[in-house]
Amino acid sequence: MIYADNAATTKLNKEAFEAMIPFLLEFYANASQPYSFSRKAKRALKDARRTIAGCINAEPEEIYFTSGGTESDNWAIKNFCPQTDIRHIITSPIEHHAILNACKSISYNSQLSLLSVDSKGIVSEKSLLEIFTRPREVVASCKNTLVSVMLANNEIGTIQPIKELCEIAHSHGAYFHTDAVQAVGHIPIDVKDLGVDMLSASAHKFNGTKGIGFLYIKKSLGIIQAFHNGGMQENGLRAGTENVASVVAMAYALKSNCDNMNKNISHLKLLEDAVISILDKEHIDYLRNGINQLPGNVNLSFKGVEGEMLLHRLDLKNICVSTGAACDSQNQKATHVIEAIGVPDEYKYGTIRISFGFENTMEEAKVIANALVSIIKCSGNNTCSKRQKILYTRLS
Amino acid sequence: MIYADNAATTKLNKEAFEAMIPFLLEFYANASQPYSFSRKAKRALKDARRTIAGCINAEPEEIYFTSGGTESDNWAIKNFCPQTDIRHIITSPIEHHAILNACKSISYNSQLSLLSVDSKGIVSEKSLLEIFTRPREVVASCKNTLVSVMLANNEIGTIQPIKELCEIAHSHGAYFHTDAVQAVGHIPIDVKDLGVDMLSASAHKFNGTKGIGFLYIKKSLGIIQAFHNGGMQENGLRAGTENVASVVAMAYALKSNCDNMNKNISHLKLLEDAVISILDKEHIDYLRNGINQLPGNVNLSFKGVEGEMLLHRLDLKNICVSTGAACDSQNQKATHVIEAIGVPDEYKYGTIRISFGFENTMEEAKVIANALVSIIKCSGNNTCSKRQKILYTRLS
Repeated sequence: MIYADNAATTKLNKEAFEAMIPFLLEFYANASQPYSFSRKAKRALKDARRTIAGCINAEPEEIYFTSGGTESDNWAIKNFCPQTDIRHIITSPIEHHAILNACKSISYNSQLSLLSVDSKGIVSEKSLLEIFTRPREVVASCKNTLVSVMLANNEIGTIQPIKELCEIAHSHGAYFHTDAVQAVGHIPIDVKDLGVDMLSASAHKFNGTKGIGFLYIKKSLGIIQAFHNGGMQENGLRAGTENVASVVAMAYALKSNCDNMNKNISHLKLLEDAVISILDKEHIDYLRNGINQLPGNVNLSFKGVEGEMLLHRLDLKNICVSTGAACDSQNQKATHVIEAIGVPDEYKYGTIRISFGFENTMEEAKVIANALVSIIKCSGNNTCSKRQKILYTRLS
Repeated sequence: MIYADNAATTKLNKEAFEAMIPFLLEFYANASQPYSFSRKAKRALKDARRTIAGCINAEPEEIYFTSGGTESDNWAIKNFCPQTDIRHIITSPIEHHAILNACKSISYNSQLSLLSVDSKGIVSEKSLLEIFTRPREVVASCKNTLVSVMLANNEIGTIQPIKELCEIAHSHGAYFHTDAVQAVGHIPIDVKDLGVDMLSASAHKFNGTKGIGFLYIKKSLGIIQAFHNGGMQENGLRAGTENVASVVAMAYALKSNCDNMNKNISHLKLLEDAVISILDKEHIDYLRNGINQLPGNVNLSFKGVEGEMLLHRLDLKNICVSTGAACDSQNQKATHVIEAIGVPDEYKYGTIRISFGFENTMEEAKVIANALVSIIKCSGNNTCSKRQKILYTRLS
């Protein structure tokens, strides 16, 4: 089997797994208890928090453990200010559904504004400036404004100008959250340099386990409310018995990915290039979506073929890729991201996302590309129009 | 070491651990993806849902996986009806803080009523009836009423008359939730017989892992909103990549506990009796809090001693017990439960909770009781007043 759907989930780091075993079987104490038996669990949480903070240049006390990216996103959006305050939320149309649907769920006490996105999936700084200069009455009742833009898109991989967007937000008195679920552990992230107030991450996207993640909350923020009320865990902001074993694995996996980041990025770039080079050599008519992508992301729209057909024929060859985000996979239509960046009709239904991980080999990349060529040529509908290709793929 | 704090957390079932390994290391696919590699994960989720449902006489589609008991409780309380509707929530003063603090957090759009509790920790049915017959104007603006009473108390173990309370609630058009975090896997639970609309559970309380739990939502309820918005996981009500490995372990552990329940209950009762018998034989002045307790729960208030001192001296003897709930352990005061049931001042600060698990032996129970006797006799302040003891412990 060739697994090239690492944007959906990654394989657990074997050493991270080994690191969690003692906290599953031996040091299983509730970390909030005061007796000696809890010390190892408490210490492990403290160490993990410091390790994770170090990976994104945060302070340990700015890391709040959650059950994953969706919880982190929901927390940032829904509990960003007291629920009695009307808030103004500015986001982009290509966010993950965890953001978009969280925004919808609080529409009863929030104003929602959407930023513009260009054909390569880059969120427009100009549109953010424009929203801030709108007539005051539109958002006059809103006490606080939160801008939430993802660090890198989960489908097309485009890395956003977060630092610039954040500066604009701050200069207008707004707060800034970034959904960095796809980016953490894959590209260098420095929260102090980015300037963001909150950042979401999920361990299973960087070779940790499912069911654990974190929300970075800048120390000085002071406006986020607890998401899980109950005990005093996580400084009173996220109640619930600490999932020590998964936290330990998350820290190990993140540190390992960060330590090997440069090597991994170079390797993944070679795999991407191999796919593109084979498709080009075989005169396949496709568009590569996005620009300045996450390492390993190859989102392709093939002319005249169906993405679902591609996915299933690749599956028959034991190759795992995705048609869109994992959460959208039941959906036969083009995804909201592909629609938002305006992929032309004759291409958009033929979209697949290949997402390589550091364990993928050059041989696997070539097998995937050749499999695609063979399936697409068999389908007979893919005729290469060189002019269109130049128009949509080379301008990037 | 003697671990007798199983109400705080339990040791992971070794076979449950073995059952989760393949889903951590081998079948790590995102369960929401459509390719063949996801089938084992999908199937495991389905099987686990059926197993868990079977353990509480629910239907599989009524089980919603969450990150634990706190999330389940927060979901039931906060998202019980649309956030634009004012709700009336009726709960008891001895609930877990996950319930009490969740209630507080939505005070901006909810009315809160507290039920009465007697000196043995039993929630009063009469006080529920009284609330429903209050003058209408008090809760006239509330669209929906939710009654939330825990199945068994986490400190004193008292099992509540849930079926009766639920019948009263339903006969007045209200909905009923029970926080069964301490009870699931320890006493027989039949959601159809109880009649509850929602029930919370947490795996690490019944020998599963931390960071996973479930909320039972009756099929016909139709009034609960999603807690995590995002993808379509858990029938669109709880977004987030499924934590397959932990779900598998949870199902295994619950099934195993339910299969051995009668045997475990008999064994735990013997351990409880052993502790009580030694304390009585040694003329220790104490009250046993609660009545009709969960198997293994021995919550004791010793006259004239400090609970924290007891806990630390036991810790020096490598014995783990608790002064109150795990979440309260930093707190030097008497817990809200001990206050609510009115334990007299001279006893209440000397409260500890011994909570045995099925792995505890008779020898361990005796060691704990003898350690308590020795510590208490050394302290010199514990003089047995037979009259008071009869008054507070024998009337149960």
